Amino acid sequence: MTKRSLDQPNSHSAEDFAPGWYVLAASSEVGVTPKPFVLDGLPLVTFRDPKGHPAVLVDRCAHRNAPLSLGRVVGSNIQCHYHGWQFDHTGKCREVPGLCGDTEHPKRRVRAHACRDAQGWLWVYSVPDVEPDSAPYEIPFADQKGYLTVRERIEMPGPLDAVAENALDVPHTAFVHAGLFRKNKDRQLIEVIVRTSRDRVEAEFVGEQRPGGLVGRLLAPKGGEVFHWDRFILPCIAQVEYRLSEYSHIITTAALTPRTPTMTDLFATVAVNAPVPNAILRALAIPSAMHILRQDAKILQRQTEQVRRFGGEEFASTEIDVLGLRIKKLLREAATGHLREGGEERRIKMLV
Amino acid sequence: MTKRSLDQPNSHSAEDFAPGWYVLAASSEVGVTPKPFVLDGLPLVTFRDPKGHPAVLVDRCAHRNAPLSLGRVVGSNIQCHYHGWQFDHTGKCREVPGLCGDTEHPKRRVRAHACRDAQGWLWVYSVPDVEPDSAPYEIPFADQKGYLTVRERIEMPGPLDAVAENALDVPHTAFVHAGLFRKNKDRQLIEVIVRTSRDRVEAEFVGEQRPGGLVGRLLAPKGGEVFHWDRFILPCIAQVEYRLSEYSHIITTAALTPRTPTMTDLFATVAVNAPVPNAILRALAIPSAMHILRQDAKILQRQTEQVRRFGGEEFASTEIDVLGLRIKKLLREAATGHLREGGEERRIKMLV
Amino acid sequence: MTKRSLDQPNSHSAEDFAPGWYVLAASSEVGVTPKPFVLDGLPLVTFRDPKGHPAVLVDRCAHRNAPLSLGRVVGSNIQCHYHGWQFDHTGKCREVPGLCGDTEHPKRRVRAHACRDAQGWLWVYSVPDVEPDSAPYEIPFADQKGYLTVRERIEMPGPLDAVAENALDVPHTAFVHAGLFRKNKDRQLIEVIVRTSRDRVEAEFVGEQRPGGLVGRLLAPKGGEVFHWDRFILPCIAQVEYRLSEYSHIITTAALTPRTPTMTDLFATVAVNAPVPNAILRALAIPSAMHILRQDAKILQRQTEQVRRFGGEEFASTEIDVLGLRIKKLLREAATGHLREGGEERRIKMLV
Repeated sequence: MTKRSLDQPNSHSAEDFAPGWYVLAASSEVGVTPKPFVLDGLPLVTFRDPKGHPAVLVDRCAHRNAPLSLGRVVGSNIQCHYHGWQFDHTGKCREVPGLCGDTEHPKRRVRAHACRDAQGWLWVYSVPDVEPDSAPYEIPFADQKGYLTVRERIEMPGPLDAVAENALDVPHTAFVHAGLFRKNKDRQLIEVIVRTSRDRVEAEFVGEQRPGGLVGRLLAPKGGEVFHWDRFILPCIAQVEYRLSEYSHIITTAALTPRTPTMTDLFATVAVNAPVPNAILRALAIPSAMHILRQDAKILQRQTEQVRRFGGEEFASTEIDVLGLRIKKLLREAATGHLREGGEERRIKMLV
Repeated sequence: MTKRSLDQPNSHSAEDFAPGWYVLAASSEVGVTPKPFVLDGLPLVTFRDPKGHPAVLVDRCAHRNAPLSLGRVVGSNIQCHYHGWQFDHTGKCREVPGLCGDTEHPKRRVRAHACRDAQGWLWVYSVPDVEPDSAPYEIPFADQKGYLTVRERIEMPGPLDAVAENALDVPHTAFVHAGLFRKNKDRQLIEVIVRTSRDRVEAEFVGEQRPGGLVGRLLAPKGGEVFHWDRFILPCIAQVEYRLSEYSHIITTAALTPRTPTMTDLFATVAVNAPVPNAILRALAIPSAMHILRQDAKILQRQTEQVRRFGGEEFASTEIDVLGLRIKKLLREAATGHLREGGEERRIKMLV
Repeated sequence: MTKRSLDQPNSHSAEDFAPGWYVLAASSEVGVTPKPFVLDGLPLVTFRDPKGHPAVLVDRCAHRNAPLSLGRVVGSNIQCHYHGWQFDHTGKCREVPGLCGDTEHPKRRVRAHACRDAQGWLWVYSVPDVEPDSAPYEIPFADQKGYLTVRERIEMPGPLDAVAENALDVPHTAFVHAGLFRKNKDRQLIEVIVRTSRDRVEAEFVGEQRPGGLVGRLLAPKGGEVFHWDRFILPCIAQVEYRLSEYSHIITTAALTPRTPTMTDLFATVAVNAPVPNAILRALAIPSAMHILRQDAKILQRQTEQVRRFGGEEFASTEIDVLGLRIKKLLREAATGHLREGGEERRIKMLV
C-alpha cells in the first residue's frame, strides 16, 4: 500500500517529481506575447524574442513579485508591468527604471529554465539555471514518411503516476471503455513480458488477438496476431505501440506534464501507418481516441477526489497491475536521485 | 469555556464521535443501485442484494481507490467501475477480472459496516468490521395505533452537539422562534429536573403552561398543565416529548447523523396522538415544525460560521443551559470510551 | 528578502499588525441597526445607542458565539438574536432571559473596543478593553476654508504594507499608470530626502517638475516647481502632498484598514485648494484619482496572488524603493512594541 497526501494543492510537490524534460505547451502556442504556464506547481512565463527563440523564466519579478506574464517583450527582454524591470532569457536583470546605479545584482535575478522547440512541442527542463546535457525525448515515427501524425492535448485530473498507469493499463479497458475494444467475457490467456531498466519499464503482450470494436476492424480488417507494447520512460513518457499483423502500425506517445498535484496535461502524438485513407483515419480513429481519453479523465477525477477525501492513497495491487507500481518506483528513484543500473525481466499470465 | 477547531472539514473527526448506531438514510432511499453516503467524514456506499438485504461498505475500492458507488451490483456483490473488482456484503474481494491466481487476499478487503432496516430508517453501525451486540434505538410510539407518524429530514449546518443542544433548548425559542410558541414577556417560574445517567440526559419541565401559538391551541384547545421532557440518548438521539393535559401526546425523535464536522442530518420521526383529524395535523403541524427547523438551521449555520471564523468555540453557560454541556460531556465520554455508571438528579429554576 | 506566508486567510494576523486607531467605516454608515465589520481578521459589531453614541464590540455572543450583528439594539444594549442575551457598550452582560440568578459574570463579557467619530470617519482602537490615551489621527486640511474635501473608499486586495508602499511609490507610476502623470522617457534627475522618525517615514522630492497629464495641467496651468512629500504614519496613514508652485495644494490622506491578510480598505480624504471651480475639480480630478486607485488595486491583486502561490514574499529592493522597506520595519517595530526613538535623514538620487 502506498500513502500520499494531496492536501497542499498549491505547493510545489518535489516528492515524486522526476527531473528532466517536460512538454510545456505546443510550440505554436508560444509567441512574443508572454504567456503563463505551470510545471509541477511552479508558475513559469514563456515568451519568444524577435528572432523566435523561446525563453522560460519563473513567473515572478525579482522586485515585488508581480507576474512577469502580465508584462511585454522589449527588445529581447521581458519587462515587468509593475515597475518596468527588464530580464533577459537567462533571467538576468537588464533594466531598473529610475535607478542611477548598477542594474545587475545577484538578488535581482529570476530563475531561468532551459527550453527547446522539438517535434511540435515546446519542451522545458525542470531544473532551473542549468544547461542540460540531455535532449528532450525524441518521439518515434512522428512526421515520418507514410505516417499520419496527429497531436492532441487533454487535461487529466490526476497526478502524473496515476495518469501514466491509467494510460498504460490493460485491465481497466473492459470496464471503463466497455464495448470499445475489450470485453469482460470470452477472455483468452496471454503472456506479458515486463522489462525494467534504469529509466523505463515496458510490458510486451504476447498472444493477444486483434482488439474488437471499430478501431480494431479499421486497422486490421483481416484480423491476425497483434504485437503490443506499453512503455513508461522517465520522466514523463507513456507510450502505447500496436502492430496489427502486416497491415498497420500505430504508436501513441503521451508526454505527461504535471501542473498541480492533482492535474496533469497529456500531450499526445499519434503516429499511424495503416491501409486506410488519412481522411478516414482522422474522421474515425481520432474522435474515438479522444472519447477514450475523456472516459479516462472522468475515472481519474473520481480517483483523485477519493485520494483527497481519504487523505492519501491506499492501493492494493495484483501481478496483472504490471506497470503501476513499477512507474511509481521509477519516479521515486528519479525524484530522489537513486536510479538503479541494470535490468530485469518478468513473465506474467493474464486473461484479456 | 470549550474550544474546538473546525479547521479540517474533510477529515474524519474521531474526537467527539460516539460509537454506535446512526441513521444513514431512509430505507426507501437505498435500492439495488449503489448510493454514496457520508458518516462523520467517512464515505460509505450502500446497496441491496437481489433479496433486498442492505449492505454498507467503505466507498473505496481496495485496488485503485475508485468510489464503489460508481459501480453496480452483480449477483450479490458490488462491482467497481474502474477494473471490475467485486466485493461481497462483508467487504471480501470475490473477483479480480484478468487475474489467473487467487482472488481473495487480506489486502484486497474493503471495510464493512453492520446495517439494519428499522422503523423506516436504514441504520448503520459506526465501527467497521464488527457484529454489534446492540440493536438500533427503538423509536417510541412510531406507527403505534392512534398515532399519526410522520418522517422528515433536514440538513442542519452544525456539529452534532450543537444541533442536539439547539433541538432540546428551551430559552432560544422565545427569540429564534419569536411568536411561534414562547414569548419574552409575562414569563412564569418553573422547575426543571435534570436526570443524567450512563447513556443519556433528560430534562423534565414542571409547571409549564400550554405553549401559545397555533400548535398549542391545536393540541390542547382547553389549555391545562403541560408535561414536557427533553432527552438526549447516546450516540445520536434528541427527543422532545409533550403531553398536553389529557388531550394530546406528541413525541419527536430526531436521529442526528454527523456528515462532516459542520453538517449534521436530522432524521425526525414525529408521533402524534391528538383530538384532531390527521389531515389537519398534517396540514398545519408539520409545516409549522419544518418552519421551526429551518429557523434553527439558519442560526446553527451562523453559529458554525462563527466557530470557524474565531478558530474554535468559546462558550459561557448558565444553569438554564440545562442540557448543552451535559450532551458534550456524554459525547466526549462515549468517544473516549469512558462512560460513567450511576446517575444524578438536579433541580433548577427557570423563567419560561 | 522578506518572507511572509499568507496561508491562513481567516486568522487574526497579529504578526505585522500595529496597534492604534483605524478607520472602521464612514460615520454615516453606522446607525442604530447593528452592522458587522472586520479589523485584521477580527469580526466586530458596531451600533449606536438612541443618543447616537457609537459602540464597537467583538461580534460574538459570549454565550453560544452567535454573531451579535444579527441582533438589535434594545435600550442602550445590543441583544443577541439566539437567546436574547444583552450587552452594553462596554461589553458587560446586562440580561440573560430566563435566568433567575445574577446576570453579570466575568465569563459573560464580550470584548469592547474604544471608538470615536472624527472628520467623517468612525475610528476604532485596535486593542480591546482599554481606554486609549491617544486620539485618532487628525487629517490635515480636511474641511478647512478654501479646501474642497472629498472622501472616497476602495477595497485594495493586498496586505496593509503592500497597499501603503504602492500608494506612496513613485517608480511604478510610469508603468501601471502609463500616460497619466509620468512617462518612462525624458527622465530628469531629482533628489529624494527620506526622513525616518519614531512613528513615521517621509520622502521629500526635490527638483521634480510639474506632473504631466490632465491633473498636472489643471492644478498648475503655468507649470513651475513642484513640492512633493509622501508619508507613512503609524499605524495606518499613507499621505501624498503636492504643492504646485503658488497655485495649488492637494493633500490625500489614506487611512488603511486591514480586513484580512489579503484585503485592506483604503479610506481616502482628499483636500484640494486650487484655482479651479470645485465643480470642475470634482468632475475631473476625482474620477481620475479613482481610476488610478483601481489600476493599483489590479496590480496589488496580482501581487497578492503571487505571494500566496509562491508561499511567501521574496522581494529584492533598490535604493529608489524609498519607503517600502521602511514601512515594513516601522510596522514590525510597532507590532512587537519596539519603536525606536530618534530620527534619521538620507538623500537619494532618482530619475523621474
